[in-house]
Amino acid sequence: MSAMPSSFIEVTYRIESSKPIDAQKKAASIALGQTTDTWTPNARSGLKKLEKHKGIVVQVRESAPSSPLVYELTIGYPAANTENDIPTLLTMIFGKISMDGLIRLEKISFPNAYLKGKGPRSGIAGIRKAVGENRKPLIMAIFKPCVGLTPDDLGQMFYELAAGGMQLVKDDEILPNLPICPVEKRLEACLKAGQRARRETGRRCLYAVNLTGPVSRLLAQARRLTRQGAECFLFNVLSYGYGALEELATLGIPIMAHPALAGAVAGSPTTGISYRTLLGSLMRLGGADIVLFPSSYGTVALPWHETDAIRQALTEPMGSLRKSFPGPSAGIHPGLVPRILKDYGPDVIINAGGGVHGHPGGARAGAIAFRQAVDCALENQDFCDIQEIGTPELAKALALWGHG
Amino acid sequence: MSAMPSSFIEVTYRIESSKPIDAQKKAASIALGQTTDTWTPNARSGLKKLEKHKGIVVQVRESAPSSPLVYELTIGYPAANTENDIPTLLTMIFGKISMDGLIRLEKISFPNAYLKGKGPRSGIAGIRKAVGENRKPLIMAIFKPCVGLTPDDLGQMFYELAAGGMQLVKDDEILPNLPICPVEKRLEACLKAGQRARRETGRRCLYAVNLTGPVSRLLAQARRLTRQGAECFLFNVLSYGYGALEELATLGIPIMAHPALAGAVAGSPTTGISYRTLLGSLMRLGGADIVLFPSSYGTVALPWHETDAIRQALTEPMGSLRKSFPGPSAGIHPGLVPRILKDYGPDVIINAGGGVHGHPGGARAGAIAFRQAVDCALENQDFCDIQEIGTPELAKALALWGHG
Repeated sequence: MSAMPSSFIEVTYRIESSKPIDAQKKAASIALGQTTDTWTPNARSGLKKLEKHKGIVVQVRESAPSSPLVYELTIGYPAANTENDIPTLLTMIFGKISMDGLIRLEKISFPNAYLKGKGPRSGIAGIRKAVGENRKPLIMAIFKPCVGLTPDDLGQMFYELAAGGMQLVKDDEILPNLPICPVEKRLEACLKAGQRARRETGRRCLYAVNLTGPVSRLLAQARRLTRQGAECFLFNVLSYGYGALEELATLGIPIMAHPALAGAVAGSPTTGISYRTLLGSLMRLGGADIVLFPSSYGTVALPWHETDAIRQALTEPMGSLRKSFPGPSAGIHPGLVPRILKDYGPDVIINAGGGVHGHPGGARAGAIAFRQAVDCALENQDFCDIQEIGTPELAKALALWGHG
Repeated sequence: MSAMPSSFIEVTYRIESSKPIDAQKKAASIALGQTTDTWTPNARSGLKKLEKHKGIVVQVRESAPSSPLVYELTIGYPAANTENDIPTLLTMIFGKISMDGLIRLEKISFPNAYLKGKGPRSGIAGIRKAVGENRKPLIMAIFKPCVGLTPDDLGQMFYELAAGGMQLVKDDEILPNLPICPVEKRLEACLKAGQRARRETGRRCLYAVNLTGPVSRLLAQARRLTRQGAECFLFNVLSYGYGALEELATLGIPIMAHPALAGAVAGSPTTGISYRTLLGSLMRLGGADIVLFPSSYGTVALPWHETDAIRQALTEPMGSLRKSFPGPSAGIHPGLVPRILKDYGPDVIINAGGGVHGHPGGARAGAIAFRQAVDCALENQDFCDIQEIGTPELAKALALWGHG
């Protein structure tokens, strides 16, 4: 019995070389070496039972003669060689060969059947429902400063941000479960602050609490925090592994994936895994409802083509998978809102740290400025009538940080 | 109260830039941004309680004028900002800034107090004890082919290899727990084969069985397999995360870390994390007793300076930590043994796949050839007397693959 074509996961690699290589042979070598794995033939190499576990060469492309030469190889891997999870998938498609010189994993395509039951459990629609906003871009703030503050400090900050109209507030990714600020205590403080803001404004604000701990106990920890009221988790996926993300997703609580460490894997154009795959396809496959990544606007910045590729991978059709919310971050201030809307459309989470806390009127005024920016931008993308339509907080932000 | 100097973890980054940067300012920005995180000052930025969580600039070095310019920044991070585990450590030292252009994490140094209770539980000495060899380099074989074979196939192969004198045999890293070859069944078959070989030869051969599964259940799975007799685990650390390695190490069963995916993180000289840190310091810190990595001899090869840096990090003094066994792999055949001994000394695991199974006399003869190679090399590194000292298997291997 040989595997059906639909059970192959297709992976495209970019290979760079200063001298010509036999790309067809290289592709065949990867297809074999990463599956049944037997280049030095021995008595068992020819066994028929190996056949259905063998990879196949799907396509080989060579760039026009240039220096260096660039090859694009697409290999089909039997999905049946994995345990239907991302850790065994990654070992198969980029384990050993990740160390084979200038080779970069550019893209993965999954058969629809493989995607069944995977991906975000809430997705864009679910997150919108949770915050009660069907149409507009969402706005989110990060606690600044973070490590060293107490639960009370964070609760106060949460209140200011929520009362100002922020729809999500997240822990900083570098704030783990420390004695000075235990996760249960800050969850308690922020939930309380959120309830107070809601009573006053009628609006909801989700708290994305940073989920950390021994990896075998993350699920249990998430369940415990959920019973305490947690409604969204921030998770440093690459620090803990995609396997942990996949398990957490089964709980059905929204997960916000942080890109910490992503540059270590995706930062080089000739090695590693593309941002599109790392923060796009794999995060979505693993079940991240929101994916944060460096915007192309700020100081820690990705080039526009990279952020756009991430956005695409998070939102384009992908079997039965729900869409993940893109969250471009870093260097965001209200003046950038029209540009963000133009680049992302309404399905975006606008995420700010310094650009909200640094407002001359404080965090609450900073949050108000972002709400005003979104509303103005939806009507009038160039902000030209700011003074007239009565948005003093936005006007102050624009005076300080400019128009994008 | 401010943190004691001894509680800082020191991390050295390499930064490349085409134009001059203010390296001192950059270092200060990293020290702050990855700890208390507040560049845009707000009402809480000056709080005294943040002080003891702040990173410090330890050293800033600039290369002699060159193009591109290279800077080396060393930052001290308060150990107290982590949960005393590698996931929170990595988020702190290379989370966001991994995405900040051409920045590479070169080196980590830990205060001795931080290392207490961490690292390999068996280490080189423990692995030697387990196989009953105090002095010589160890020899190890990989199953080839792998995915598609049954437990019986692997058991037969194990017997041949163990009877031939292999001291360790490992699963291929791409063989997970598949219906065609369930892990319990292959463990049973290989343990039985090992016992048979032991009865016949008096020698022990450890089986490193590939540990896979949902990350929350890896510990339980390892315990179950240990009860069944497992004596060593192969583990794809980077596919599952260092956090899983740290927890598995607490069981005290030897762990062999596979480098799958390492090239994705360490393959570029200007971004990512150095091989020395990724496969050396962090694997050892996390508790890997044996660390495999591509040798500098084979087809999937690392440059010598990289493999030597890994070897150093695994074996040099590091607080109270035991040494991890270096396992250079890929492209190893008996003719290379003298060179491996020269490069590594006796504390090395010589690991072969094709170079044992591809022997004209089969896997058992291949194993014998390796034993002969080790014994001859320890006496006479240039193999010049092969014909006279009665080692026909080695002679055949040398005729096929040459002398290194």
